[in-house]
Amino acid sequence: MTIDAKINQSLERALRVGEKTNCPAKLNSALHHAVFPGGARVRPKLCIAVAHACDPEADLTDAIAAATALELLHCASLVHDDLPCFDDADQRRGKPSVHVKYGETIAVLAGDAMIVLAFQTLAQGAQSYFRELTMVMAEATAPPNGIAAGQAWEAEPKIDLEAYHNSKTAALFIAASRAGAVSVGNSDANWRELGSCLGRAYQIADDLRDMLLTPEELGKPAKQDVRNCRPSAVESYGVHGAYKRLRGAIDAAIESVPDCDGTESLRQLIQAQAIRLTPDHLVQEVA
Amino acid sequence: MTIDAKINQSLERALRVGEKTNCPAKLNSALHHAVFPGGARVRPKLCIAVAHACDPEADLTDAIAAATALELLHCASLVHDDLPCFDDADQRRGKPSVHVKYGETIAVLAGDAMIVLAFQTLAQGAQSYFRELTMVMAEATAPPNGIAAGQAWEAEPKIDLEAYHNSKTAALFIAASRAGAVSVGNSDANWRELGSCLGRAYQIADDLRDMLLTPEELGKPAKQDVRNCRPSAVESYGVHGAYKRLRGAIDAAIESVPDCDGTESLRQLIQAQAIRLTPDHLVQEVA
Repeated sequence: MTIDAKINQSLERALRVGEKTNCPAKLNSALHHAVFPGGARVRPKLCIAVAHACDPEADLTDAIAAATALELLHCASLVHDDLPCFDDADQRRGKPSVHVKYGETIAVLAGDAMIVLAFQTLAQGAQSYFRELTMVMAEATAPPNGIAAGQAWEAEPKIDLEAYHNSKTAALFIAASRAGAVSVGNSDANWRELGSCLGRAYQIADDLRDMLLTPEELGKPAKQDVRNCRPSAVESYGVHGAYKRLRGAIDAAIESVPDCDGTESLRQLIQAQAIRLTPDHLVQEVA
Repeated sequence: MTIDAKINQSLERALRVGEKTNCPAKLNSALHHAVFPGGARVRPKLCIAVAHACDPEADLTDAIAAATALELLHCASLVHDDLPCFDDADQRRGKPSVHVKYGETIAVLAGDAMIVLAFQTLAQGAQSYFRELTMVMAEATAPPNGIAAGQAWEAEPKIDLEAYHNSKTAALFIAASRAGAVSVGNSDANWRELGSCLGRAYQIADDLRDMLLTPEELGKPAKQDVRNCRPSAVESYGVHGAYKRLRGAIDAAIESVPDCDGTESLRQLIQAQAIRLTPDHLVQEVA
């Protein structure tokens, strides 16, 4: 079974609580709508790639549970971030966003439910490192440094840009990278930097895509940063400057991979992802 | 130190993550606004009372962690339930509700953060029964039977009334009662019924108070059930019928307390709470 299939199977299992039971139908349907079909599943894949790089022979039970929790937390943040009081985005992954299709109350509750399901998935699935993985996930989502704090910076009169980007985007990448190491019994100390660099790269890539691609290419509204007066790398450094910083962040990510059994293959994976991140015509445009 | 003081101390500690760190100020302030000063702290007190009844000599470390998590989950549900897309309530506990004071985005994020902090508190505080307590809390909040599902019933064209009340109100009482037993190493099998009866009692009492008390007495808007077209015990059975059912639920709760070292004192505590639940003039009105 491919890693993609394993992640999807585990996500299906996490949401199955709502089937064949007396769960309100709209909430059940909204949860599936929010999680399937997924985006690139980048965070769970990073978690599993790090686990595999740390120990290619290791049992991946805890890594799969952590990967599933990461994706549920990510999907929860997307559903809440699309709400009218946040980005007011009517599309996500080429489909109506959850609040457009199911209403605002169900969107709030689906996000809440996915946060809980993430921790429930760890409790059910993580065998050896349940407590450590719970701590990693909580740190990535709660204040002061998790995604909830990241989104909360947008409500402040003066935004701490570094804290904003670190907590809004990098937090879950750092968690993915740390969780990968922790889930196979390794220390996570050397793995924060990889998540941090990749988080920075994704934030810049997201800002570039928001500015340069069409809604059809994005599967969601374009130019949301300008519309919502959000700080963005494009606004700060221009397209060319932002692209240079994106390349710099990817190089730093590759450089940061600690010595382990799978260092080389992990570096190749990051390089391949970097190409995917930056569409051809964007590269040519800024070349 | 009284139980009240211990619960508040533990809640302070759970929220302290935002202090002396780079946490966005509004979110930090909103979290404290949502949790302090508290209401009656009924769910955490029930948890600790059950733990103490099961084993008066037991160490209460895990029970305090569970009690704290319960209150955080309860406060999260109140903050989200007050949002404009739900009850649109502008007051809670005699103060402006979180979204009125801090805005909708911060209210959504504060709720999200409190859910995560609940699970983080368990990871940090629960020593012996961390996994079991996490499962109890997740079941009480996630679909199909947790509070998120309870609120989601309100968006269905046809409401399953029993499932609605069980998941919206009873779920956290059942969790409190189960967690009390689990946190001192007892089986929770005999303790579900107590939580279920108390949850029913609280739901009916809440319906009665909503209909009969003034906003000043309630510290929040009155007659919200009628305004939001919510099913209520008063609507279904009238004031007198609802009051009879409230008494019945309390009697059933007292009856349900399993044989243990503290059976009698726990029964007395429930009786005392029942009097608090039903204000004098309400008792006279329906007598």
